[in-house]
Amino acid sequence: MHSVELTKPDGRRMTLYARSPLPPGLEAPSPFPDPLSNGAHLRWHPLRGEWVTYAAHRQGRTFLPPPEYNPLAPMTDPANPTEVPVGPWDVAVFENRFPSLGGFVPPPPDLIVPTAPADGRCEVVVFAQDREGSLAGLPLDHVALLLQVWGDRTARLGAEDKIQYVLPFENRGAEVGVTLHHPHGQIYAYPVVPPVPARMQQVAGQFHAREGRSALSAHIEAERRDGVRMLYEGPHAVAFVPVCARYPYEVWVAPIRAVEGFTHLRDEERSDLARALKTVLMKFDALWDRPFPYLMAWYQAPTDRQPHPESHLHAQLWPPYRTRDRLKYLAGTELAAGFFAMDALPEEKAAELQQVEVTVS
Amino acid sequence: MHSVELTKPDGRRMTLYARSPLPPGLEAPSPFPDPLSNGAHLRWHPLRGEWVTYAAHRQGRTFLPPPEYNPLAPMTDPANPTEVPVGPWDVAVFENRFPSLGGFVPPPPDLIVPTAPADGRCEVVVFAQDREGSLAGLPLDHVALLLQVWGDRTARLGAEDKIQYVLPFENRGAEVGVTLHHPHGQIYAYPVVPPVPARMQQVAGQFHAREGRSALSAHIEAERRDGVRMLYEGPHAVAFVPVCARYPYEVWVAPIRAVEGFTHLRDEERSDLARALKTVLMKFDALWDRPFPYLMAWYQAPTDRQPHPESHLHAQLWPPYRTRDRLKYLAGTELAAGFFAMDALPEEKAAELQQVEVTVS
Repeated sequence: MHSVELTKPDGRRMTLYARSPLPPGLEAPSPFPDPLSNGAHLRWHPLRGEWVTYAAHRQGRTFLPPPEYNPLAPMTDPANPTEVPVGPWDVAVFENRFPSLGGFVPPPPDLIVPTAPADGRCEVVVFAQDREGSLAGLPLDHVALLLQVWGDRTARLGAEDKIQYVLPFENRGAEVGVTLHHPHGQIYAYPVVPPVPARMQQVAGQFHAREGRSALSAHIEAERRDGVRMLYEGPHAVAFVPVCARYPYEVWVAPIRAVEGFTHLRDEERSDLARALKTVLMKFDALWDRPFPYLMAWYQAPTDRQPHPESHLHAQLWPPYRTRDRLKYLAGTELAAGFFAMDALPEEKAAELQQVEVTVS
Repeated sequence: MHSVELTKPDGRRMTLYARSPLPPGLEAPSPFPDPLSNGAHLRWHPLRGEWVTYAAHRQGRTFLPPPEYNPLAPMTDPANPTEVPVGPWDVAVFENRFPSLGGFVPPPPDLIVPTAPADGRCEVVVFAQDREGSLAGLPLDHVALLLQVWGDRTARLGAEDKIQYVLPFENRGAEVGVTLHHPHGQIYAYPVVPPVPARMQQVAGQFHAREGRSALSAHIEAERRDGVRMLYEGPHAVAFVPVCARYPYEVWVAPIRAVEGFTHLRDEERSDLARALKTVLMKFDALWDRPFPYLMAWYQAPTDRQPHPESHLHAQLWPPYRTRDRLKYLAGTELAAGFFAMDALPEEKAAELQQVEVTVS
């Protein structure tokens, strides 16, 4: 992996990554001349016992691009600056101009609940230069590079004292609210371990204390033995519809060995994990012969410098469709109770995806 | 409150409620001749430590009504049976024909994770006979009756040994997935305390042990003192945009006294709570002069026959809109991390709702 660190004219940091060496002289553009001057703060939710972040400046974006303008395309016209330069890079990472956490962090207001600076980081990850492409369509070694980039970001962001948890994710498709179709994801680096990973760490910690291994290791072993929901089985990585799927086409992608996070992956594990991921994404897009929307989140260990033998890196992919034409809406029982109700059996949805044949290369 | 208990031809239970006495001879219709014959089961999610319910029969509903057919309208034509009879009832409650919990409960399958019978209850609550109406448009004493009905359902469902938690909720609007616009809500009675109420009970229990009162009591006191986000202040009930809102137009509605649940409300508290709720719903609909979608959930104490001085009945209303034209999508940080990011300040959204004048009668 090759990389170069740059600073944008408005002060934001950027890193370009590539499979081949990058030439000198690359510069980081920005559509925004001025540095960030207003930011977010956290408020404590006293009934749920969690933080909420407020970034009011995001709502009032002065930046209204014409529909054909793509801020994630390489900048070819200095009169229309974008976020990324021309050059032989494969993946670009930069600080979000409208961050929910970090950037310019003002002192928090004095309110009737505890408040705190929203002192984290929000990064944009441009997966590739081609705006028409998708993660599924990238060459295997490009996908593997992305996994390596997520590791590098986890290491760099996690090295900051204030950062407790690094979550790479991708929202794909208008159905999940995405308006910019250039293939990209995001990374949130939180000043706390957020509620969902915190709960998962608690559950995994109890399992590990009792059984001496990661809960996901045990689950992967059982899924492989059962076999009926498997989508990919390689020497080092697997993908399957979990027996306890909360979304009809939910898929988990994981290394077989219980590695704590991206930085712990061996080269051969990363390659096989890339193949598992690409296999799933190609099946998704081929299922209905159209781009398949999803939310993909990668869970890993907190970045608190403690050992986390209970943590087991993996992705959970949550597509919003129940069938070709019908969305699964999260409503009363899912959102208000946190109790998911499924109309489809995971075994049926796994069979649909198993029948989709794809050639991964 | 007057009520009559009936049984539908397919075996489902129904209760009709009214402000005035109900005549004898009412019968409960059903569009379905046969009793329920297949049901749901629970599977354990080993990474999140929670149950998920699977009701595959819901997907394959044989029942495809024509668009003009309204199963929640009083049945006037025996050739086209609906779910409710003609008669002077105000609110009708019946068991869902396609329940995610309860109904016919088969033995759970043997799988690689723990499974259990989906032994709860799912009820439909028809708010009124007029299909064109809405909860906001009902007379105050009809809204108060609904609060009393929720109390009666909580008492009856909670009296079953297997039921641990009763959650009344309303999903309103196509934006939250509703396809049937006759005003109605649902009640889920769970065989466990589900994840979100469980977390809230834990947080509330810690607060109560430390401070000797409910967390919501303390919060209501602070909101009233602060004043800037209040929407309704009556002698016994309040409504406000909480300082820690997770949705732009989030509103909480609560009795001022820390009553554990609907069954603990005094008459004057119930009346004022109805007024608080109706005030908020009228403001919602008046804000953009169109029906305002939302998810409304009522949190109360678990039904485990233990005292719950930490519990404080209240509704949380979560509208999906950020602005008149833009939805707030729950994506990476909200769903995968459980960490909500807000673009709008609660103070701004409260001001918008405060400026909407409504006459509640």
